[in-house]
Amino acid sequence: MADQKIPRATAKRLPIYYRYLKLLLDDGINRISSVDLAEIVKIDAATIRRDFSCFGALGKRGYGYDVEALLEFFAGELNQDNLASAALIGLGNLGHALLNFKFQKTSNARISAVFEVNPDLINTIQDGVPVFSMDDLEEQIAEQRIDVAIMTVPADVAQDIAARLEKSGVKGILNFTPLRLNVSRAIHVQNVDLTNELQTLLYFIDNDIKN
Amino acid sequence: MADQKIPRATAKRLPIYYRYLKLLLDDGINRISSVDLAEIVKIDAATIRRDFSCFGALGKRGYGYDVEALLEFFAGELNQDNLASAALIGLGNLGHALLNFKFQKTSNARISAVFEVNPDLINTIQDGVPVFSMDDLEEQIAEQRIDVAIMTVPADVAQDIAARLEKSGVKGILNFTPLRLNVSRAIHVQNVDLTNELQTLLYFIDNDIKN
Repeated sequence: MADQKIPRATAKRLPIYYRYLKLLLDDGINRISSVDLAEIVKIDAATIRRDFSCFGALGKRGYGYDVEALLEFFAGELNQDNLASAALIGLGNLGHALLNFKFQKTSNARISAVFEVNPDLINTIQDGVPVFSMDDLEEQIAEQRIDVAIMTVPADVAQDIAARLEKSGVKGILNFTPLRLNVSRAIHVQNVDLTNELQTLLYFIDNDIKN
Repeated sequence: MADQKIPRATAKRLPIYYRYLKLLLDDGINRISSVDLAEIVKIDAATIRRDFSCFGALGKRGYGYDVEALLEFFAGELNQDNLASAALIGLGNLGHALLNFKFQKTSNARISAVFEVNPDLINTIQDGVPVFSMDDLEEQIAEQRIDVAIMTVPADVAQDIAARLEKSGVKGILNFTPLRLNVSRAIHVQNVDLTNELQTLLYFIDNDIKN
């Protein structure tokens, strides 16, 4: 099952399922129908059934899904036992916000290093995480075996940094800059363009496109 | 054409197309093929052609697309002439980052009011935007005709605030909290879960799922 490619849209919903199933189990709920789960996660029931069937999880009619079994399966899929190290590049307001998020609480990654150009921040500890100079990027990424970089830097330096990250062997970039990065296909780039999100919402409102 | 429902995934790519076509035109580029555009926006050419055909924009073989014509059309679709007012609820690090984004530069919305519970911030001006008490939420939303709210508040108060926003007549919520909001279908909710984004990237890396 793990070898089978699943649709990207399904993959994106996995962490949502995982988080809510965990909340359900914490509340002592051991089974749930796709209809009830749909109400909670705000994803329609047909989509949930289709998604779950991609993973071979088939609910039983009149019983629904076994929450604990689903959760165990998703935890394996999401590789929850393996904590990945992430680098945060850029510690402005957005960088600080991301550092405060404590990703390790709800995901299988933690920010283990911050890189900055501001001399007032370099060599300090912020929210428990050391801040390094951008000059030390390559060295620290190798030393700390960092897999993923979260980029919250000005757009005009984003491409240069992406190239340095690629050379350093980083496998993925969470890109918060509005720039679409030019990197090889070997690197995964997840673009999070917050201006776009607002623009898209406005477009959905104007055209009344429902979720 | 405007009455036709377009796929949600296509709608989400519209602002990206818009921004890059604008950059092209600024650079004096008047026509572009889907293949060249694909290289720039990092979306494959077949998807671009399919997206554009949804809007009735058909590139000419051997000529490509007329950049200015596309841009004009997208500007209309995205309602660029009509500046929407947005409320920012919660001015922590993420709120500050969003305020700094100056949405009005690249989208057809601007943040016209901030709402906070912190008395040190209430009645101040931050980045040119007035900060109001949460107590004034309903009054200000009505007075300023605010259409959209951007929520960066703690998860435990998110549902209450969403209910207040719905009663106030807001049409859409950009939800940065990890909570899936319970609102009527009349309100559009766009969830931006930043922890999820990192989790999804890690999943894509582990399973080598390409964009």
